[in-house]
Amino acid sequence: MADSDGMRDLVDLKERLRAFVAERDWDQFHSPKNLAMALSVEAAELVEIFQWLTEEESAMPDAARRRRAAEEMADVLWYLVRIADRLDIDLLQAAGEKLERNAVKYPADRVRGQSRKYDEY
Amino acid sequence: MADSDGMRDLVDLKERLRAFVAERDWDQFHSPKNLAMALSVEAAELVEIFQWLTEEESAMPDAARRRRAAEEMADVLWYLVRIADRLDIDLLQAAGEKLERNAVKYPADRVRGQSRKYDEY
Amino acid sequence: MADSDGMRDLVDLKERLRAFVAERDWDQFHSPKNLAMALSVEAAELVEIFQWLTEEESAMPDAARRRRAAEEMADVLWYLVRIADRLDIDLLQAAGEKLERNAVKYPADRVRGQSRKYDEY
Amino acid sequence: MADSDGMRDLVDLKERLRAFVAERDWDQFHSPKNLAMALSVEAAELVEIFQWLTEEESAMPDAARRRRAAEEMADVLWYLVRIADRLDIDLLQAAGEKLERNAVKYPADRVRGQSRKYDEY
Repeated sequence: MADSDGMRDLVDLKERLRAFVAERDWDQFHSPKNLAMALSVEAAELVEIFQWLTEEESAMPDAARRRRAAEEMADVLWYLVRIADRLDIDLLQAAGEKLERNAVKYPADRVRGQSRKYDEY
Repeated sequence: MADSDGMRDLVDLKERLRAFVAERDWDQFHSPKNLAMALSVEAAELVEIFQWLTEEESAMPDAARRRRAAEEMADVLWYLVRIADRLDIDLLQAAGEKLERNAVKYPADRVRGQSRKYDEY
Repeated sequence: MADSDGMRDLVDLKERLRAFVAERDWDQFHSPKNLAMALSVEAAELVEIFQWLTEEESAMPDAARRRRAAEEMADVLWYLVRIADRLDIDLLQAAGEKLERNAVKYPADRVRGQSRKYDEY
Repeated sequence: MADSDGMRDLVDLKERLRAFVAERDWDQFHSPKNLAMALSVEAAELVEIFQWLTEEESAMPDAARRRRAAEEMADVLWYLVRIADRLDIDLLQAAGEKLERNAVKYPADRVRGQSRKYDEY
């Protein structure tokens, strides 16, 4: 069964999600607008797991909390991959380009140990 | 230069982000709590791109809007990969397990063409 | 009983929430940072109610959905009033000042019927 | 000038926002779905102000940060009042009803000093 195999990479995930959605005729709901909303809702469900914890506690979640976090993160990734598919965006390429831009915006020797946004420097 | 190579996969991205953060001594800010907040802020910036568009318009963004969407999606992926690294979660595995669970929760022949949540069925 | 009286205004709500929180010794969790996170989570729960609906459907919710929306909106207002209390901000005054600024930023005769952000004009 | 008067209460704010929107013919964009999205985006902009601060720092913002927080909170209130207007929901009444429900869900003598959600008790 395809679904029980390990997930190979983001392309594999994209294709399996595409099939999952097609079988359910859910493409009609999957406008980028709706998918972005859904992604933000899943992001909030991830935030909810940590919101009343201290930062230290959030770094040492018990098994149940860690499992819930993994589930919400899977949901975020699902919608991210779906939007990328709808807009024909290569997520890894976009992440790589961002890395190059941020290396310029935040020179290591200038921002070391500081959390301010680049426009505050 | 490592940064200008293409990004190979999520493991490669994880490692490059880890190096990027270490060079800037930003690990101190990267508690799962803070990273989840940051992810949700980036998700909202993605939502903002589409919020006043119709669903149809959101599916046909012009080049500038599509580029902004790709940037925000890269930001979401960054933080998602960072949290997964901090919590030692395998994102692809989590996404695959979610696919199996959702195949059970939303049987194709029962939910076809409907957008209700599974607990409304 | 104070709690069963009608809520008079935002000042009344602020004071009742302050008492509610003090009785539970929850002030320790109510940093502006945590409250802002909590507010954003409640905002997402409001979004979730409408996310798969069309815009038209969202304007005609059935009684159950409308009641859920009212609950989530109450949660948003709670946290908003709590943050305002912690930062000593007058919400009505802030809303009034925003109205004045927006009247300047978005002159009616220039933006009529258009949804673009002011920095796109 | 009406706009430069002080804002009296939430009803006054509702009416001024209604006029502001009508003058710009923006009602067409103000479906509850869109307004909820917009509210969540403003909530995220509030979160962004505090995200890299410690909880302690977030409780002592400098004047600039406090002013930005007040602006984002005004935006949240705007959209909240707009959605309430569209769905004919009385925000103060909803907040009061929530207070009564939460007084039952979270008995002070049981939850004192603890931040867990009620379903974890």
